[in-house]
Amino acid sequence: MKTMEILKEDGLARLGIVRTAHGEVKTPVFMPVGTQGAVKAVTHKDLKEMGVQIILGNAYHLYLRPGDGLIKDFGGIHGFSGWDGAVLTDSGGYQVFSLGVLREIKEDGVVFQSHIDGSRHFLTPEKSIEIQENIGADICMCFDECAPYPSSFEYTKNSVELTSRWAKRCKDAKRIDGRLLFGIIQGGFYDTLRVKSARDLVSMDFDGYAVGGLSVGEPKRLMWDMVDAVKEYLPREKPRYLMGLGFPEDIVEGVSKGIDMFDCVIPTRHARNGSLFTWKGRINIKHARYTRDDEPLDNECGCYTCRNFTRAYLRHLFVSHELTGYYLNTLHNLFFYADMVNRMREAIREGRFEGFYEEFRTKQEGGELQDEYSVCNG
Amino acid sequence: MKTMEILKEDGLARLGIVRTAHGEVKTPVFMPVGTQGAVKAVTHKDLKEMGVQIILGNAYHLYLRPGDGLIKDFGGIHGFSGWDGAVLTDSGGYQVFSLGVLREIKEDGVVFQSHIDGSRHFLTPEKSIEIQENIGADICMCFDECAPYPSSFEYTKNSVELTSRWAKRCKDAKRIDGRLLFGIIQGGFYDTLRVKSARDLVSMDFDGYAVGGLSVGEPKRLMWDMVDAVKEYLPREKPRYLMGLGFPEDIVEGVSKGIDMFDCVIPTRHARNGSLFTWKGRINIKHARYTRDDEPLDNECGCYTCRNFTRAYLRHLFVSHELTGYYLNTLHNLFFYADMVNRMREAIREGRFEGFYEEFRTKQEGGELQDEYSVCNG
Repeated sequence: MKTMEILKEDGLARLGIVRTAHGEVKTPVFMPVGTQGAVKAVTHKDLKEMGVQIILGNAYHLYLRPGDGLIKDFGGIHGFSGWDGAVLTDSGGYQVFSLGVLREIKEDGVVFQSHIDGSRHFLTPEKSIEIQENIGADICMCFDECAPYPSSFEYTKNSVELTSRWAKRCKDAKRIDGRLLFGIIQGGFYDTLRVKSARDLVSMDFDGYAVGGLSVGEPKRLMWDMVDAVKEYLPREKPRYLMGLGFPEDIVEGVSKGIDMFDCVIPTRHARNGSLFTWKGRINIKHARYTRDDEPLDNECGCYTCRNFTRAYLRHLFVSHELTGYYLNTLHNLFFYADMVNRMREAIREGRFEGFYEEFRTKQEGGELQDEYSVCNG
Repeated sequence: MKTMEILKEDGLARLGIVRTAHGEVKTPVFMPVGTQGAVKAVTHKDLKEMGVQIILGNAYHLYLRPGDGLIKDFGGIHGFSGWDGAVLTDSGGYQVFSLGVLREIKEDGVVFQSHIDGSRHFLTPEKSIEIQENIGADICMCFDECAPYPSSFEYTKNSVELTSRWAKRCKDAKRIDGRLLFGIIQGGFYDTLRVKSARDLVSMDFDGYAVGGLSVGEPKRLMWDMVDAVKEYLPREKPRYLMGLGFPEDIVEGVSKGIDMFDCVIPTRHARNGSLFTWKGRINIKHARYTRDDEPLDNECGCYTCRNFTRAYLRHLFVSHELTGYYLNTLHNLFFYADMVNRMREAIREGRFEGFYEEFRTKQEGGELQDEYSVCNG
């Protein structure tokens, strides 16, 4: 059976199904980030109720704590955490380069220090796959080098070549059938390098292709140029995943360019900072204007938070640092993202994605906050 | 209709119903603390599902933030927070003496500074009742002086007399019918003063009587002596409330002495510190012994946490500082307390409270932790 089935195309936007060992994932899909085996502040039950089909775990974090060996002994992350939907794991590449105290990049792999206790570790493509298989990920990611922004052409070119060699080693290291392995396209902000990376990986025939190394502080225009540069090189019947993105308008933009999968800490992290997404744009619940606002956060939203509480109460909980506020905010933001991809799927199915896209962008501009730069990886 | 109906007595333990403007409260009852209009980390839905009938709010905190005037404009705490069960508010006395920077105790009231912004406020018995009525409490508490431990006989005697004069003023200040007002018995750790305080208040005919000023760092034996000293002076058909207590064994002990109502931050605060209650005693989930423990927290417990997760996973969430862990722990501890009072009510109804008491205490001694001193107010 094919990994991905395309049910409908509407412009470049695609409606599809990705088959995993823990269920079918309807795309476009947003994957909430559960770095350490839990999506921050909410429960598996909450995620199931809002229709979340797949969450992201993180090889780097879970390797360091509680350890992938322990997780394996509990039957993988599904047995350990109790989550019964699909799980995609990040390879650890991004975290080694952003969180760990980086010691040295070698041909063989990367020596780094733990951000928790400073202990030294050596992560290789083979080790990353072993960790991800121990975790029991339904979708594993290749171990890649995520070049910093900005990087020179020369540096980035070497990085792309290393990433391609590592991708090949990841493919060879994979042991477990029925689990998917995605390649990660790098290349910084050089379109020729992005194309080279895409061609290299596609020639290795992965189960899906991710665009990585974006949303690292660059102007958004530049980011979308890189997506545009590679999209024609990606095979139609394989899932396409834009890593670490983004704001609601970014997800909608990505879908309009044929991207199927997204993950980002934004809905959860922003919820904890009081930044909440609505169908009329983003609001910061801390703002004094909400002190006596007796409206729900978003009267177009059907989540528990919006069905039961006013903005005034949510603001009170937020300024009082109440944990319940973090929970209610997170519940709402994740519901908003789940609802958003759900509505996009409907729009594609009904051949009206362009209308959805225009209406969504127009409405979002009514919100309080706009961002020129995108830094949302985590 | 009477405020309280006694359905059954079993030894000194009582099965009863307290009637409030927001429903009947079956006693013995434990009231989770929702200091600022939310029980920390959980939602109203969670509380309802575990059978919580009444929660505690705090006049001092809600007066300072968001303000009792704002709450009144939203239809009281029920309209503002969306909680539709009963609410009891603390008068603010305890918090003024423990949290605020105390300026001066006068006959008329207390000048204090806010713990939030240092602003100066003057709280009187009349003002406290006004605040509690603005909040829309179903049960209001008299404004009292909570003497520190230890205090001299002379100091405590004056404090009791002041508390009695303030109680009278609270009763006179009450404006809204159908809301209950409880007197608070003070007297430090002098049984003669406790008796005097109880007699003073009973002569004023309140809707219920609380024992306050306990659990402030004293040996537990001394605390129970004070409860024993006053209990024969309390009218049978009025609710009895032991403020700020306590550990599960304290609640059971209190019920055995004829106490009907309890509140404490222990289940919520301890949950956030990883201290979890089970039918076999308390455990600290942080302990390394749980690293690979694949059992539920408590296999006698029917809460969401115990039905779905292992100790190993809960430990992982706790050591990783995951908000989801605080939520799952809080859910369990509150469920445990709700289940405990529920089982006590059944035992009293069936005339087997003494057996419950003995079995409970024996089992609890199997836990990891024991406390000689009780400091649990908040």
